[in-house]
Amino acid sequence: MPSASKSWLLLCGFVLFYIIYLLFGALVFSSIERPAEDELRRDTQRLKEAFLNQSCVSAATLELFLSRVLAANKHGVSVLRNSSGRSNWDLASSMFFANTLVTTVGYGHPTPLSDAGKAFSIVYALLGVPFTMLVLTACVQRIMQPLVLAPVGLLQRSGLKPRPATVVHFLLLLAAVVLCCLLAPAAVFSALEASWTFLDSVYFCFISLCTIGLGDFVPAARPGQPYRALYQVAVMVYLFIGLMMMYLLLRTFHKMADVHGLTTFFQLPRCEASLLADDTEPIVGNDPTPPRPKDKAATKPLDPGSQPSYNSINKG
Amino acid sequence: MPSASKSWLLLCGFVLFYIIYLLFGALVFSSIERPAEDELRRDTQRLKEAFLNQSCVSAATLELFLSRVLAANKHGVSVLRNSSGRSNWDLASSMFFANTLVTTVGYGHPTPLSDAGKAFSIVYALLGVPFTMLVLTACVQRIMQPLVLAPVGLLQRSGLKPRPATVVHFLLLLAAVVLCCLLAPAAVFSALEASWTFLDSVYFCFISLCTIGLGDFVPAARPGQPYRALYQVAVMVYLFIGLMMMYLLLRTFHKMADVHGLTTFFQLPRCEASLLADDTEPIVGNDPTPPRPKDKAATKPLDPGSQPSYNSINKG
Repeated sequence: MPSASKSWLLLCGFVLFYIIYLLFGALVFSSIERPAEDELRRDTQRLKEAFLNQSCVSAATLELFLSRVLAANKHGVSVLRNSSGRSNWDLASSMFFANTLVTTVGYGHPTPLSDAGKAFSIVYALLGVPFTMLVLTACVQRIMQPLVLAPVGLLQRSGLKPRPATVVHFLLLLAAVVLCCLLAPAAVFSALEASWTFLDSVYFCFISLCTIGLGDFVPAARPGQPYRALYQVAVMVYLFIGLMMMYLLLRTFHKMADVHGLTTFFQLPRCEASLLADDTEPIVGNDPTPPRPKDKAATKPLDPGSQPSYNSINKG
Repeated sequence: MPSASKSWLLLCGFVLFYIIYLLFGALVFSSIERPAEDELRRDTQRLKEAFLNQSCVSAATLELFLSRVLAANKHGVSVLRNSSGRSNWDLASSMFFANTLVTTVGYGHPTPLSDAGKAFSIVYALLGVPFTMLVLTACVQRIMQPLVLAPVGLLQRSGLKPRPATVVHFLLLLAAVVLCCLLAPAAVFSALEASWTFLDSVYFCFISLCTIGLGDFVPAARPGQPYRALYQVAVMVYLFIGLMMMYLLLRTFHKMADVHGLTTFFQLPRCEASLLADDTEPIVGNDPTPPRPKDKAATKPLDPGSQPSYNSINKG
């Protein structure tokens, strides 16, 4: 099979497995957490009714009532009337939670209530976080050619020297990412979420794409949100594409730092080269550097003899 | 200056600047957020007093009261009596928040209240996240020799072939990291935090070191915590060392995957080689692979002529 076809087949397999893994996580989280949540919700409602039925409210009873209300709220169970109907652990919400775990965004709304949920979160993230990194790396690897290598080649052909070409390209890519992954989605969020200002939305997008995920703003958390499940899936897709673009930006910056000798100056690892056969084709013909032995190894991916040893990697 | 001394000097400079950056962030966050927090706290207390003073509690007044209590709680201002004294934005807590921003852990307790705080969070993370990655990379780069290259060399000298040696080393390192960065700190947390079980503590350590940071468990958040500031600084140091070890584990796994041909099989970038002069020394003499041109470039870090061009990097 040609290398390019195999590469795309592998990527499709990765993405498909990623979606299956999210669905699997959603099913497990939903089945573990929903009963615990229902019980907590019933308890909180009973507590509220009992509080309302008493003749006089003392400071001590209010304190006790509030402490239990806040404890339930910490786990995403609100005592308020207008939010008592919806679950945080339906299939779409559980998938959203699974997604925030494996991407390491981790908003923390909701969080697992039960010990089984916590233990499953550990196992799920243990496998899911590296796998998500693998899928993101594989995706970025495939978009390097059209979004980085080709444009830099074009800039160089248009007369720019390699160093300025990398800087111009990086700035253009940065502007595109800020526009398409930060400002445009922020405008959509501020239109969809009634209480979010544009600054709140930009802040949410930025905090999410840096994987900080503070959780003070979480989309689709408003009671009575129309098309909630669809909205949550759309946010998941946005997060995936956004993280991919952030990673692409980081790799492009790293490559630019290489060209400018910054990684060598700071004695840091260079940005690893692309091993895709497509990428090893020279983009611009005027580069006199001869291909290195590594290139040859890349064209024989499954020949064990072509694998470098641990020490040769350390030296390379 | 010898390369090794320069390398350590650079690392010390990085770490020092990292601490200064955290202190600077703490000062700014504290000065921006503390007035907003004080105002919210006063409002919430007034609201509670007014609620207690009314003669009868209707469902509607309770609903309104609770919605405002929960909104204040979202920003870390609790209405409860025993937590009304402490601020979330004293110097140590602000530094803790700054640290969770730049490491992308982001527990989300507390979160900025004011627009100025949100805007500063964006700018602070924009510079801080890449810088923290740089510091962590530089630190990991320096501990690769004693914790990865030397032990693998030792295992190879003791008669193991390169591939099994990398697997044995990775498993040993994994066991050490699980013990020292997960189980031992979890035991300490479950002793220090009254309401945390051992599972809760393991869950907290794991979720933190994966930078998910859900925020359902945050150390030093209990009211009346003794030596709170010291405890928060200790947690920051733990997070830094833990993240460093997670990154080391990831790089070691990546290198192992290289040796076993997995990166080539999945057509992913290889683990970048160390550029440190120390690291380029062969550990075991029996490796027949000749040094590649890249090695020579690494020994002349500041000679512009030795820098690879963008295209040669793409091909390499």
